[in-house]
Amino acid sequence: MSDFKKIGVIGAGSWGTALAITLSNKGHNVKIWDIDTQHVQALKANRENRKYLPGVQFSEHLQVAEALKDAVDGAEMILFSAPAQHFRSALEGAAPYMPKDIIAVNVAKGIEQKTLKRMSEIAYEKMPAIKYVALSGPSHAEEVGVGQPTTVVAASNDVELAEVVQEIFMTDKFRVYTSRDVIGVELGGALKNIIALGAGISDGMGYGDNAKAAMMTRGMVEIARLGVKLGADIHTFSGLTGIGDLIVTCTSMHSRNRRCGIMIGEGMKPSEAVEKVGMVVEGMFTTEAAYELAKREGVEMPITEGIYAVINDKIDARDAVNMLMTRDKKSETVV
Amino acid sequence: MSDFKKIGVIGAGSWGTALAITLSNKGHNVKIWDIDTQHVQALKANRENRKYLPGVQFSEHLQVAEALKDAVDGAEMILFSAPAQHFRSALEGAAPYMPKDIIAVNVAKGIEQKTLKRMSEIAYEKMPAIKYVALSGPSHAEEVGVGQPTTVVAASNDVELAEVVQEIFMTDKFRVYTSRDVIGVELGGALKNIIALGAGISDGMGYGDNAKAAMMTRGMVEIARLGVKLGADIHTFSGLTGIGDLIVTCTSMHSRNRRCGIMIGEGMKPSEAVEKVGMVVEGMFTTEAAYELAKREGVEMPITEGIYAVINDKIDARDAVNMLMTRDKKSETVV
Repeated sequence: MSDFKKIGVIGAGSWGTALAITLSNKGHNVKIWDIDTQHVQALKANRENRKYLPGVQFSEHLQVAEALKDAVDGAEMILFSAPAQHFRSALEGAAPYMPKDIIAVNVAKGIEQKTLKRMSEIAYEKMPAIKYVALSGPSHAEEVGVGQPTTVVAASNDVELAEVVQEIFMTDKFRVYTSRDVIGVELGGALKNIIALGAGISDGMGYGDNAKAAMMTRGMVEIARLGVKLGADIHTFSGLTGIGDLIVTCTSMHSRNRRCGIMIGEGMKPSEAVEKVGMVVEGMFTTEAAYELAKREGVEMPITEGIYAVINDKIDARDAVNMLMTRDKKSETVV
Repeated sequence: MSDFKKIGVIGAGSWGTALAITLSNKGHNVKIWDIDTQHVQALKANRENRKYLPGVQFSEHLQVAEALKDAVDGAEMILFSAPAQHFRSALEGAAPYMPKDIIAVNVAKGIEQKTLKRMSEIAYEKMPAIKYVALSGPSHAEEVGVGQPTTVVAASNDVELAEVVQEIFMTDKFRVYTSRDVIGVELGGALKNIIALGAGISDGMGYGDNAKAAMMTRGMVEIARLGVKLGADIHTFSGLTGIGDLIVTCTSMHSRNRRCGIMIGEGMKPSEAVEKVGMVVEGMFTTEAAYELAKREGVEMPITEGIYAVINDKIDARDAVNMLMTRDKKSETVV
């Protein structure tokens, strides 16, 4: 028999909800909370997340908390599923109710805009004793919600902690691998949104599968190059949280980054495209961050530079592709 | 000005034709030949490959040769685009008309069934002085034929030779990278068909994008593991000829391997599915070859083993997925 835990989930978007359902269906006692009070009331009334994950009922083990304190207090593990730019405030909000060495699993993918920090850097800065695990991988929430086979990675500096989290989440439909490469897992998940934007631009311009596969492959190569400079293990970028997540993102219309890219590729001004998407397009900022990091670290990232120039309206997308295709002749060196 | 070459192309399928068109449009003098005499007559009459690449006219620089000798004699480079299982006989047929140190570019992806040999091994066995280059990458012929942006890799033990071939092929729409990892390029191109079959099975069973991305990512990880044992550079499998080619294959209905897999996933007997495809399903054999090679080399390849068991009717596809999802808990170690 597995050991059932008390788990608090902060953020009831589609992914937080899908994971809360997975955990509670396994038998864990889960309480989910969201900063949007109306949304919380709807979850409570419907026992279903009609807004972000319609059609999947909550089991008796999944409770909706009306206050953050209720979700967090007494929990043995907290799952953070707030957007990347709000992780800091979510952590600050929950901190008073958590032990200093709480197990915190974070699924946010991004780099903090003001500080260029990864999510784990924020966590350790705020709570040095936190038991931090990044959970990431190719996982549409819609599929996880209905129990379609899915694989993810639990990454922690502390291998045994990653194994504890693996044990908590794993089912016969939700397979969890462990990793100790937190930097690689975090960077892959965040930076892949640049390439999702680029793949969208390519699609929007009417280019084909060859161009998109080239963009994805060479894009991940340059992300890996930057990642290694920043302390990641290069192999992580060939794994589930790197190319695996990129594959799922680039073939899905669920991806806001890709949808935004498509509109830019079709000729819309980048600022208009972002407005039209109507929600945060994380890749727009991540591109800026990667551009800055690449300059700082002296890493060659021609695809990222091209996308950066396009989304900042410096060059036309067609000229960017032309520049990429007519660069100096190269060897396919990965690092 | 670039230096225009006399080039012979052996095999007028879609890919051989698309490359002959690319080369001749650049200004090279190309002669294409095929073993199917009727097909050759049609090419000659139509100045177009209506059978395999309809809608793209031949330029004046592309001639159709009625005899193998006419295509090969006096050529400075031969492009072999016969299927993998016919490369040996194509090479034997052309050998009498070629200098012993001819530049030979091969685009066949596969492992010879009887011998478990890679294409370059066959070439060096037959013609030890041959200047051999493997050309591979994510490249639907249909897109290359109409000048959509495409990237490939020219791999040779001799870097300068790879650079010569890069120079011959490269245009602003067809970007060629060089590599010295012939083993990795050949194995990636061949073994990716196993995963294409598996991705098809997953699709046919009604599984989603998460499962397919997991299959592709973890599948490439185990292919890389085998490749390294056989002398390849692990980074090659993260490149255009590895994951890049896999991405293009797994998202396309052009892939016979994927189509065959879909039918098996839908419940058709593997032998019937192959019959229904009506052409060689290279992945069926490549799976057998990889299974044998993995046993011989002592490499763990659970996905390949699962697909092997399914296509040999030993287990049901659903049981195979279940076995993969419920294996021992693992770390995401790539090598």
